[in-house]
Amino acid sequence: MPKQNAFYAQSGGVTAVINASACGVIETARRHRSRIGRLYAGRNGILGALDEELIDTGRETAQAIAALRHTPGGAFGSARYKLKSLEQNRAEYERLIAVFRAHDIGYFFYNGGGDSADTCLKVSQLGRTLGYPITAIHVPKTVDNDLPITDCCPGFGSVAKYVAVSTREAALDVASMAKTSTRVFILEVMGRHAGWIAAAAGLAGQGAGEPPHIILFPEVPFDRAAFLARVQACVARYEYCVIVVSEGVRNPDGRFLADAGTTDAFGHKQLGGVAAVVADLVRSELKLKYHYAIADYLQRSARHIASKVDVEQAYAVGRAAVELALGGENAVMPTIVRKSDKPYRWGIGTAPLARVANREKMMPRHFITADGFGITAAARRYLAPLVRGEAYPPYRDGLPDYVRLRNVPVPKKLPPQG
Amino acid sequence: MPKQNAFYAQSGGVTAVINASACGVIETARRHRSRIGRLYAGRNGILGALDEELIDTGRETAQAIAALRHTPGGAFGSARYKLKSLEQNRAEYERLIAVFRAHDIGYFFYNGGGDSADTCLKVSQLGRTLGYPITAIHVPKTVDNDLPITDCCPGFGSVAKYVAVSTREAALDVASMAKTSTRVFILEVMGRHAGWIAAAAGLAGQGAGEPPHIILFPEVPFDRAAFLARVQACVARYEYCVIVVSEGVRNPDGRFLADAGTTDAFGHKQLGGVAAVVADLVRSELKLKYHYAIADYLQRSARHIASKVDVEQAYAVGRAAVELALGGENAVMPTIVRKSDKPYRWGIGTAPLARVANREKMMPRHFITADGFGITAAARRYLAPLVRGEAYPPYRDGLPDYVRLRNVPVPKKLPPQG
Repeated sequence: MPKQNAFYAQSGGVTAVINASACGVIETARRHRSRIGRLYAGRNGILGALDEELIDTGRETAQAIAALRHTPGGAFGSARYKLKSLEQNRAEYERLIAVFRAHDIGYFFYNGGGDSADTCLKVSQLGRTLGYPITAIHVPKTVDNDLPITDCCPGFGSVAKYVAVSTREAALDVASMAKTSTRVFILEVMGRHAGWIAAAAGLAGQGAGEPPHIILFPEVPFDRAAFLARVQACVARYEYCVIVVSEGVRNPDGRFLADAGTTDAFGHKQLGGVAAVVADLVRSELKLKYHYAIADYLQRSARHIASKVDVEQAYAVGRAAVELALGGENAVMPTIVRKSDKPYRWGIGTAPLARVANREKMMPRHFITADGFGITAAARRYLAPLVRGEAYPPYRDGLPDYVRLRNVPVPKKLPPQG
Repeated sequence: MPKQNAFYAQSGGVTAVINASACGVIETARRHRSRIGRLYAGRNGILGALDEELIDTGRETAQAIAALRHTPGGAFGSARYKLKSLEQNRAEYERLIAVFRAHDIGYFFYNGGGDSADTCLKVSQLGRTLGYPITAIHVPKTVDNDLPITDCCPGFGSVAKYVAVSTREAALDVASMAKTSTRVFILEVMGRHAGWIAAAAGLAGQGAGEPPHIILFPEVPFDRAAFLARVQACVARYEYCVIVVSEGVRNPDGRFLADAGTTDAFGHKQLGGVAAVVADLVRSELKLKYHYAIADYLQRSARHIASKVDVEQAYAVGRAAVELALGGENAVMPTIVRKSDKPYRWGIGTAPLARVANREKMMPRHFITADGFGITAAARRYLAPLVRGEAYPPYRDGLPDYVRLRNVPVPKKLPPQG
């Protein structure tokens, strides 16, 4: 196979460890210079390819690339942008090919979630559909943990750890204050359709009665009366109640409990503020003093408390993506394969993108307790290994020393788009 | 001086390091068994004294007490409860004395903020006012950093570090998403009257233009037009805008921007939700996509990212309180004395409680930039040393291994109160 250049892009919401995957891709590509020439990153994800805004990762020092492993966010910029079908927007694909051809790009590494896997699949078919053969490998990433086939998704373990740690800490605070002040504490976490993140908060408590006392999952229709009765019983018994609520909780009629009415670029509804809705219910119906926190971006950018397992897996899928490409694979995604729970052992597998794209993995119903408010032993068995280990970033003057790349642009070769 | 028992209580909102002060008090008292007999802690703060609900700290192992140093929240329970004046509620003071006398308590260590310093002062005067001589030492604690005389307050440095780290991390996230998604990110932090915590977020950025781009302080009346213009200019220049808003920000007419209309036990207004107010303004006036986080209790319980300097100072004031008591002092509070900024050197001083009680230290106006939206070099010089150093708790199975004390009750000697 002749030497060709490669393109790497980040897609969708970023995570605390997506740059660790970038690090895996870049460091591995650098070890195969005879096969992969230059590695270009898309500025702001796939838009970088469409706009011919390429970043030359070769202009970064080995030290800067290594620092990606401990730096959150998307070092090259990400994008919420989904390619339409070939029939709907053939011009877009032709533009992609023009840019790829101009820069001799033969490898496409796309780091994202389910929507991105679909884009990656379409790119992998450009040889067949538009006569530009290219190797496209998807690098899994999503805090939502909702990609199929892979046992877990890089990005999730660190959010899980953040949420579990924060719940444990805030619960100690509320417990100390409950006698004369706050009785009910509510933490709102991400998870539009699947309750994986909310479930992870359950790791904060170990024995019966330990907080969080109530978890509200998107999978369980919100039962107002049962919820209020549970809060009341909890306060009566423990003096306080810690609630973790997923942004995606729905009323029995299917509407989100907190529906902001706006949508993002993928057409998903933009949510937020469910904690305030729940808090208001607690106040008005139970007359209890409450506090609430909304973790929002803090949870998915909290590299300072990342899971070591997650960082290692994020790096490993980046490295595997390059190795798969060099091994002649196309249209696949490296996966995390769990070999055993205890001790936790894992390896890398592969999944065809046709079986990954646009499919959401829901949380198994048997991970949620019968009453709908907690997690089962099976859920703990699954979740516990994913938050294991600390992988602290280096600090300077008391703050994490995160890298900012130079992001040197590659000179454009094409006329600007009309 | 004959050997007497001691009473220790936590008061007001708890912090990530108030237990480190408890650890300092208890370990130091244990080293002076010839002078201090038993050390009792109040269950739920001063209420433990009024209700004769005492905890025998002597029943805890040295290991458990040492673990307080890395455990957030209030290990014995805290209370928002302010003693009225002697004239207004003489019976309450007489009850206190009855409990102190029944348990031979000659030392009173009170760990709290400004309101608590007032209570501590009143207790220190019981000898003169009601004929029960007792040594009362206040142990400073408040995330608000608003106690006078002391250079800083234990508890603040860790919130400052949490807020600065979280701002830096979330800003990297938003920066990566800005091209196609979120443009404006808002982080709501604590600080009812003083903007110390909001100011600390300013440490996240180092050069010009680095986030946070806008800080909204309680000290600066909210100028809607200037704020919106700044957000717009920021997005035009950097593609995104990171805003840190203090819960205590007020309109020019003096009303809180987010006034929930409820009050706590001290008669302070309970605030919350200012981030939503600011976000709504950004959406309606500028049509920009936003996200917001509310740190709430997470910020003050985040022992996992505590400042090492803060942990050391919290321990030191606990230890100093006992040493001051044994040295014959009364009605004083150990303070943090700054000896130099760079290198940061500090020591312990003392302040008379009469000069501490009920006085709030505001942030100096020269800590805020002329435009009212940022911090000055002077503020950085003051704040930077306080977040320095990491003091990670031990972890077990991926989560911080925080201690729960046995909290063995001391048998009651008095009939229950009527």
